[in-house]
Amino acid sequence: MATDNFGVAGLGVMGRNVALNIERNGFPVIAYNRSDPNAQRMREESAGKNVTVTQSFQEFVSLLDAPRRVLLMVTAGAGTDRVIDALLEYLEPGDVLIDGGNSHFPDTDRRAKRLQEAGLHFVGCGISGGEEGALWGPSIMPGGNREAYDRIAPVLERIAAKTADDGSCVTYCGRYAAGHYVKMVHNGIEYGIMQLICEVYDILRRAVGMPTPEIQAVFQRWTESQQVGGYLVDITAQCLDKADPDSGTPIVEKILDTAGQKGTGKWTAQSALDLGIPIPTLSQAVNARILSGLKSARVEASTILDAPDPSYDGDVEELTQLLHDALHLAMIACYAQGLHLIQAASKEYEFGTDLAEVSRIWKQGCIIRSKLLDPIKKVYKEQPGIKNMLVHPSFASVVNESLPALRAVVESANRSGVATTCLGATLAYLDSYRSEFLPANLLQALRDNFGAHTYRRLDRPGVFHTHWNR
Amino acid sequence: MATDNFGVAGLGVMGRNVALNIERNGFPVIAYNRSDPNAQRMREESAGKNVTVTQSFQEFVSLLDAPRRVLLMVTAGAGTDRVIDALLEYLEPGDVLIDGGNSHFPDTDRRAKRLQEAGLHFVGCGISGGEEGALWGPSIMPGGNREAYDRIAPVLERIAAKTADDGSCVTYCGRYAAGHYVKMVHNGIEYGIMQLICEVYDILRRAVGMPTPEIQAVFQRWTESQQVGGYLVDITAQCLDKADPDSGTPIVEKILDTAGQKGTGKWTAQSALDLGIPIPTLSQAVNARILSGLKSARVEASTILDAPDPSYDGDVEELTQLLHDALHLAMIACYAQGLHLIQAASKEYEFGTDLAEVSRIWKQGCIIRSKLLDPIKKVYKEQPGIKNMLVHPSFASVVNESLPALRAVVESANRSGVATTCLGATLAYLDSYRSEFLPANLLQALRDNFGAHTYRRLDRPGVFHTHWNR
Repeated sequence: MATDNFGVAGLGVMGRNVALNIERNGFPVIAYNRSDPNAQRMREESAGKNVTVTQSFQEFVSLLDAPRRVLLMVTAGAGTDRVIDALLEYLEPGDVLIDGGNSHFPDTDRRAKRLQEAGLHFVGCGISGGEEGALWGPSIMPGGNREAYDRIAPVLERIAAKTADDGSCVTYCGRYAAGHYVKMVHNGIEYGIMQLICEVYDILRRAVGMPTPEIQAVFQRWTESQQVGGYLVDITAQCLDKADPDSGTPIVEKILDTAGQKGTGKWTAQSALDLGIPIPTLSQAVNARILSGLKSARVEASTILDAPDPSYDGDVEELTQLLHDALHLAMIACYAQGLHLIQAASKEYEFGTDLAEVSRIWKQGCIIRSKLLDPIKKVYKEQPGIKNMLVHPSFASVVNESLPALRAVVESANRSGVATTCLGATLAYLDSYRSEFLPANLLQALRDNFGAHTYRRLDRPGVFHTHWNR
Repeated sequence: MATDNFGVAGLGVMGRNVALNIERNGFPVIAYNRSDPNAQRMREESAGKNVTVTQSFQEFVSLLDAPRRVLLMVTAGAGTDRVIDALLEYLEPGDVLIDGGNSHFPDTDRRAKRLQEAGLHFVGCGISGGEEGALWGPSIMPGGNREAYDRIAPVLERIAAKTADDGSCVTYCGRYAAGHYVKMVHNGIEYGIMQLICEVYDILRRAVGMPTPEIQAVFQRWTESQQVGGYLVDITAQCLDKADPDSGTPIVEKILDTAGQKGTGKWTAQSALDLGIPIPTLSQAVNARILSGLKSARVEASTILDAPDPSYDGDVEELTQLLHDALHLAMIACYAQGLHLIQAASKEYEFGTDLAEVSRIWKQGCIIRSKLLDPIKKVYKEQPGIKNMLVHPSFASVVNESLPALRAVVESANRSGVATTCLGATLAYLDSYRSEFLPANLLQALRDNFGAHTYRRLDRPGVFHTHWNR
């Protein structure tokens, strides 16, 4: 079985790299792309390798060993349905179809039902790691039919990233759309951490007035940090280091400050609203991208609305240390929020997801891999049902040590008029989560006043309504 | 036509009060509720009035003058579909069906299509004002079929709240689901302002340590304010004034701090994500309610995670003035965000909504009525296409004058560990919106680094990709 061939449909950069990864690990690959350029590029990149490139579904399917294993690597959305429709003409009962794109989890559920009716097995499978990860070892998040997963596991385990002491970065994430759900939240966490890094950069740039090379040196130092070190800090140091070939100045200074997005962060925020789970750092990161997109409105507003004097006049070394500790705590909050959300989704949708396993497979290969994932995995291994990892001793101590740093950073930034969209949201989240009392008692009084929505009391059970205006 | 009768189906407190309002304004009412208690209560409350209570759809419809006008006042959701299904057996082409509940706007679109196929006219109609408003004059937000609106307009104009100098609080909000969309965003703004008021209360209570009667006196004074005065501040003063009959102490001190929600705030946040419009104050208000709901987790966390010393040691009078100005600015931000969202939705869904008209009908009757709506209406009357009312001179001056107050309030609260979920989100929103440069340049570099997402440049047109790791 291990030498049966494996199909990859969709040969964009991610598809090509996954195909090469599979072949390098000893599995013959049958690849498919209708378009000439992608097919041609695959032929060039796989010259001399055990890869057969096809351009018709009929040939593609006919070359695969039955029961077949087909990995779709196409852009999520209607294109996925079109490819599935076309493949269904040729696939046979017992074949396994794996969607390796960033599909929205309700679409995965819908497709799984449809394929099940046709006797096929469907695996919704998140793959993270970008181009490089796809080629050399991504983090892989499959879910769906367990039997189908077992049939593809030998391949996935070979191609996935490897941890030093914790196995291969793939696990069965759970039933139904669990794989795409976990990947969606992975991306939500990615949005959060990236925006936090950007806010730290912005504070150094606009509040402190630090030149890019000095900011680069800060992030370069942090690549070694046990607290914030990880892939995203690594590539931040790399990005800040890159010179514009034309001007010789740092290229980040030339890049338009308007962020794109492809949907997974938005879906994470929308799902959290449906499930009633607080993920303000992640959802405010989506909002920050939206605000960045309003460039022309911001340029206009900047001539009308006054800025405070942005200069920070405190000790820069001290602020840098505070920023490190604040980023550490806020990154922890991102993971805590995301895992809280997966926990709730697993319960609501009966995924049966193991959060320790999810943390383990995020330790290497994926975009959010960082040194924090090892202690996070240990927490969920030790207490699988913990409501929120923030109250586990290993993270509670960080909250208690670093919350003053986050508080100080938000204060300095706010004084300078540098927006702390996610740092500030994280502070409010932590200050809310650790508060026995919030002002929702007044909110309930107001709701009961105008809408007779009733309220509960602190001192006795029951549901109450007051005639407020009498 | 003006004396043709009018049907009201669904006789909960809102339905009963709207029915009595319609009858008081000279239109005979045929009322329907299947259940005995609601029907009986309607009979009691309408004794001697021109209201006929029915308990079967057949009788209900048979008593209505054709072409019929039927207002549904049932809880939004599957119940609305069940009532529509039942009514469809008896209604005839040309009849007008009005959904006066808080239906989700996609449901309204779906129902409108279905009824159109049956030859009926459907009007999705938001109604705000709570029990009292329903009886004495709500703000009414109808949308959908224009011809059908014209047929019910004489009734709606009579029963709606009246402004002193600006007509009746009803207008045609636009095509398709415009009415329910406008009402949904009205409720989103309501969430935002309520949470802001709660945070002001919480700062006075927990940071300053002010007793409830003194906080009540602050809000009582603010009921007269030209800046923050309005219904929600009025009822805040009322709620804080109410004593618990048993203990004699303020009843708010006895109410459990766990807020409920019924969906409209959540839908507003989700729709804003779909349309890419920043409404952080409104969406963070939903998040604040979610966090309030985690009471047992918060009680546990409060014993594990440390609080800072919450005492505010500055001048309390000064802080109170700052809170007033901060609340004023943040309320403006709520309206700005909500109207920005309606503007975008109107464009995307081709509602054709007039924002000046929306602001006008919110001036009386509804929950978010306040003294700010008159200047807001003037802005949209003068510049219907303005991107964001914050840059209009009449509000830009407030931003410039009061942003330092908001900044100071957030700082004081954060130092005391009192969460500023919405005040802080508003500050970040304003600091982002007025910033020519945000740190999304680094974000784009990171996205291009791991995902080849490409970026644009500040200094020249085109789309670029960099090989970052070489």
